[in-house]
Amino acid sequence: MVKKMLYATGIMSLLFPTLAFAADDPVATVSLSLDSLWVMVAAVLVLLMQGGFILLEVGSTRMKNAGHVAGKTIFATGLCTLVFWAVGYSLIFTEGTSLLGGLSEAFFNPSKIVEGGIAGTSIFFLFQLAFAAVSLSIAWGGFAERAKLSVYLIFTIIFGVVIYPVIAHWIWGGGWLASHGKQDFAGSTVVHLTGAAAALAATILLKPRIGKYNKDGTVNAIQGHNQVFSTVSVLLLWVGWFGFNAGSTVAVGDGFFGYVAFNTQLAAGAGAVAALIVSWIFLGKADIPTMLNGALAGLVAITASCAFVEPWAAVVIGIVAGGLMYFTMKFFDKVKVDDPVGVLSVHGVAGIIGTISTGFFATGELAEKVGVGKAGLFYGGGVDQLVVQLYGVITSGVFAFVVSFAALWLIKKAIGLRVTEEEEVIGLDLSEHGSYGYPEQMKKAGTGYNVTG
Amino acid sequence: MVKKMLYATGIMSLLFPTLAFAADDPVATVSLSLDSLWVMVAAVLVLLMQGGFILLEVGSTRMKNAGHVAGKTIFATGLCTLVFWAVGYSLIFTEGTSLLGGLSEAFFNPSKIVEGGIAGTSIFFLFQLAFAAVSLSIAWGGFAERAKLSVYLIFTIIFGVVIYPVIAHWIWGGGWLASHGKQDFAGSTVVHLTGAAAALAATILLKPRIGKYNKDGTVNAIQGHNQVFSTVSVLLLWVGWFGFNAGSTVAVGDGFFGYVAFNTQLAAGAGAVAALIVSWIFLGKADIPTMLNGALAGLVAITASCAFVEPWAAVVIGIVAGGLMYFTMKFFDKVKVDDPVGVLSVHGVAGIIGTISTGFFATGELAEKVGVGKAGLFYGGGVDQLVVQLYGVITSGVFAFVVSFAALWLIKKAIGLRVTEEEEVIGLDLSEHGSYGYPEQMKKAGTGYNVTG
Amino acid sequence: MVKKMLYATGIMSLLFPTLAFAADDPVATVSLSLDSLWVMVAAVLVLLMQGGFILLEVGSTRMKNAGHVAGKTIFATGLCTLVFWAVGYSLIFTEGTSLLGGLSEAFFNPSKIVEGGIAGTSIFFLFQLAFAAVSLSIAWGGFAERAKLSVYLIFTIIFGVVIYPVIAHWIWGGGWLASHGKQDFAGSTVVHLTGAAAALAATILLKPRIGKYNKDGTVNAIQGHNQVFSTVSVLLLWVGWFGFNAGSTVAVGDGFFGYVAFNTQLAAGAGAVAALIVSWIFLGKADIPTMLNGALAGLVAITASCAFVEPWAAVVIGIVAGGLMYFTMKFFDKVKVDDPVGVLSVHGVAGIIGTISTGFFATGELAEKVGVGKAGLFYGGGVDQLVVQLYGVITSGVFAFVVSFAALWLIKKAIGLRVTEEEEVIGLDLSEHGSYGYPEQMKKAGTGYNVTG
Repeated sequence: MVKKMLYATGIMSLLFPTLAFAADDPVATVSLSLDSLWVMVAAVLVLLMQGGFILLEVGSTRMKNAGHVAGKTIFATGLCTLVFWAVGYSLIFTEGTSLLGGLSEAFFNPSKIVEGGIAGTSIFFLFQLAFAAVSLSIAWGGFAERAKLSVYLIFTIIFGVVIYPVIAHWIWGGGWLASHGKQDFAGSTVVHLTGAAAALAATILLKPRIGKYNKDGTVNAIQGHNQVFSTVSVLLLWVGWFGFNAGSTVAVGDGFFGYVAFNTQLAAGAGAVAALIVSWIFLGKADIPTMLNGALAGLVAITASCAFVEPWAAVVIGIVAGGLMYFTMKFFDKVKVDDPVGVLSVHGVAGIIGTISTGFFATGELAEKVGVGKAGLFYGGGVDQLVVQLYGVITSGVFAFVVSFAALWLIKKAIGLRVTEEEEVIGLDLSEHGSYGYPEQMKKAGTGYNVTG
Repeated sequence: MVKKMLYATGIMSLLFPTLAFAADDPVATVSLSLDSLWVMVAAVLVLLMQGGFILLEVGSTRMKNAGHVAGKTIFATGLCTLVFWAVGYSLIFTEGTSLLGGLSEAFFNPSKIVEGGIAGTSIFFLFQLAFAAVSLSIAWGGFAERAKLSVYLIFTIIFGVVIYPVIAHWIWGGGWLASHGKQDFAGSTVVHLTGAAAALAATILLKPRIGKYNKDGTVNAIQGHNQVFSTVSVLLLWVGWFGFNAGSTVAVGDGFFGYVAFNTQLAAGAGAVAALIVSWIFLGKADIPTMLNGALAGLVAITASCAFVEPWAAVVIGIVAGGLMYFTMKFFDKVKVDDPVGVLSVHGVAGIIGTISTGFFATGELAEKVGVGKAGLFYGGGVDQLVVQLYGVITSGVFAFVVSFAALWLIKKAIGLRVTEEEEVIGLDLSEHGSYGYPEQMKKAGTGYNVTG
Repeated sequence: MVKKMLYATGIMSLLFPTLAFAADDPVATVSLSLDSLWVMVAAVLVLLMQGGFILLEVGSTRMKNAGHVAGKTIFATGLCTLVFWAVGYSLIFTEGTSLLGGLSEAFFNPSKIVEGGIAGTSIFFLFQLAFAAVSLSIAWGGFAERAKLSVYLIFTIIFGVVIYPVIAHWIWGGGWLASHGKQDFAGSTVVHLTGAAAALAATILLKPRIGKYNKDGTVNAIQGHNQVFSTVSVLLLWVGWFGFNAGSTVAVGDGFFGYVAFNTQLAAGAGAVAALIVSWIFLGKADIPTMLNGALAGLVAITASCAFVEPWAAVVIGIVAGGLMYFTMKFFDKVKVDDPVGVLSVHGVAGIIGTISTGFFATGELAEKVGVGKAGLFYGGGVDQLVVQLYGVITSGVFAFVVSFAALWLIKKAIGLRVTEEEEVIGLDLSEHGSYGYPEQMKKAGTGYNVTG
């Protein structure tokens, strides 16, 4: 849909800068330069979100795994960069079939196009790479506190070659869902649901962490060790989301990117407030992690819909996503799916809610402005768009889950997914990396410290 | 004054984009797009400052309250967003009386203006919302480590409806202080003094924390638990301040926003250096929190004056604000006003210093360029501007204090402001939220840990 | 070279805005405004890197020094601001000799140029100041955990007046290395090698930390206390580097800044991956700090070459810098040069690798586009550029080291560089500032805690 919008607004010139700067129109050239600056700023903001994911996952897990959890995100982002450069970008955005693009831009080299301006292609690459890296960081939630380091390496490559590019091509790269008019402005499906589906496959195959579920069916809360990190992570993600959503306009133009940012802010606020109230009512306490996840759920849900809906609908979408999240978290614990960072609820369920929401709330004017799909049920569009959205969610979610599951199943058979019981108990900082992430604090504690939660 | 400048430079078109983009002038349109991008970037930077406030308040308080202190900022920012959307923005920026605007843009909906470009209104909203949220986060300093969570909720609504919009309308929304030519470029008064006045009301009504003052009149330092967080907070605030001050030009144009940023940097540096030297001389040690607060005091003071003064004056303003801060902190402790995060000195006193400073240092050329007020005492303007500045500070400060005091007094009578003594001793993480923010570190410590400081 | 590029692209108007805005060409004016916005954003990103340096140095050192290590960076940045304003900026960028500029812009005052637009000069100042502050923060790595606070003060002044401006004038300010066509796009030499050379002088004169090297020649690892801080620091630096490298184009224009950012991302990813693999092979464990330093080494190395090389070369440069770093770290430990934060390898050696790399990998087209030097050995340029690069590295590195060594030697003779043995054992938080950075955690620990590692 970004792709669609690119065509619609002429910003495809970002992909083919030779056209853009060959045009003998100095005002249009400055305007394109302005758009490229905005996409650059947005790419930086989305890369900054990795800081949010580092702190979110660290804050939600235990001290004995802190160095591992944090450090592996830098490594995975680095490897993802190389994979996306080698093949991922080309597989999404070049001509191919309706299922996958080709390899004509493998080992992408924008330096070739010197005469017309090296221009926007490099920036568009960075922006799209940052999205892929976010989706991958979401997936890690399902691996947390028990997967081997080598599994992170192998899965990064598989995710960057086979999983993310396929979904992204379907929806943003001119693939079959794009031609059905699927609305997913900034990736509730492409980025969030894909990452969450991979996380679901991983957590099922890895099985729950030691000590999470008792034989009598009861659940032990394994608390994250640092709510300050979690809170700062949410703030960083919130701020970065302006690059994520508003950046997906890939244009400054008439200021529409501001409207997208405006809706984003409303949904985030509504999600936080709704989750706090739900937690207060049903748990008796205003649980901090629940409230933080509410803000994130609001952000995830508005990601698909931010460009298609009116402000009141953004508030409603945020409330629904933030409020429901509490119950889906309970649900996953009930069926004994261990989700240490809450990504199944926050990115999976909220991603689905957000994608479906445009089937209800999209206005005709905004759908026309963006150039994708049509009005939703509440704005006189009937159920057509709703059906497309449901269809898109199901096919994308199933594909991402099935391929992730198959890949991880093969890895499990080949080399195993999980560290040994002993390694898990002493923590992955020692087992996978040879030193604690917090050596002074852990050393002090003696042998029995922290090992079971 | 921003408003004033908006009129002066034609950027009010940001508020009425239909006008802007109807104009059949492509170069002017690109120029407006460029301005809207800058304001967007600035809004993101000011929202990032919430990360600074989270870490500042957490770093300045104790481990048993860390999750509460951090998490409540996200919640309050979310609720503030909804309140500002519902009424706050409209009350500041729409036609009304000279005391308060109207409700014509309540539940603000920029999607209405599709034909002429949805444009800048959304971005201007985000930028202004970010300022309101900063003012609120300053106020929390006075509530820290003892106010009930429910009080945060109620006060957020009161602050967003009654307190902040009134002062902002007076000075930036075309109200009565604006027509007197009050100079407050980016909010030393509107944002910082307002927040600090609310903090003062809160801390007086809440009374000091347990263990802060002894019966014999001596003072116990209740140290914050994490100077690394405090330091990173100052860096984040410093960086975000470029959005705060330089963004308040709401225009790129001739690069004046760079000059504003330049003065901001000088004052911050001068404040840090001055505070360190004062601390070294009077305390015998180069106290880290004092030096950090010096940088912030310099930033707060230059906020009003950044667009009106020459570089040497920016350095002097930073030195005065950073140096005095040490003594005002001593003063508040002497009169037993417990100010856990130092906001009374850093945002209150420095906000006053900064506002008054233009009465001395404003140059005629710059005042004319900005289009507000006139030269100060040292630049041949006599005492006129100084009187306006003093007048503005007093009326704004008194209003914010009195309304905050009255509101909190009513809440106190109705439901009480403060947690019980027992709850305060065990910490607000447990009492208000049911779990520690640092569960592993606190659990380890046993029952007697940290309870009195 | 930035300077060179400024001339080449007409962006020197940033330095002389009167010319720019006097020009009666509205499109060119908007285009210049756009460039000034990009440099402003880049300056903010480079200032944000100080947050990275704070967390990097804190994470790599011990809890007893955490407040000191963090806080002194804010102080040094503040003092550096004042020094750079007073003389540093002028000494780099004004007319003078080929060895050093003059003092015509001492106490730099951009408010003088009101009529033509105050404009870009202020922004260019901020951008350059941020670079100087980064170089200084790199130098602190050599002082860590044992230098007196007063030494930080004095050395900040010396570095800002005598050391950094000289090298920066040589290469970026039209000095003698600039006229030899030395390629250093964003400062592998000017910023990173200069800082590392100062660090080397410091660590030699300070001698190793207590307990680092045993009498029998073996080495004790003194682990940093917080890998989460280290990881977040790398992410912040990585993100800020887009301002550092891509911002050094000081223009948006045809999007070349995006190409520079693209190469930067590739080298960072390659550095992280290479270092992890090397660590895994040679250490038997995937060491987190090594991998983090690999990403940074890739970033440092690409800093000189980002605008001159093709993507594949960026990957190679990242791999070489990230991979070699492991061995140079071993080397410095072998020769008993104590480098607590790893700056000698990460900024020194990688800075040299990066500078020399253009002598091999620079393409003729890109060298011509940037307007500095010529093609490297692998692109038909022969050894000419390689010789210039080697020459530039040696002269700059030797100058920075010798002057730093001489200055610190004088300070050592005059007042001493190092805290007493007792002070070092109890930690610099107590000795230099009178309170722990983590008072609750350290208090709890009792007297024997953390003192020797």
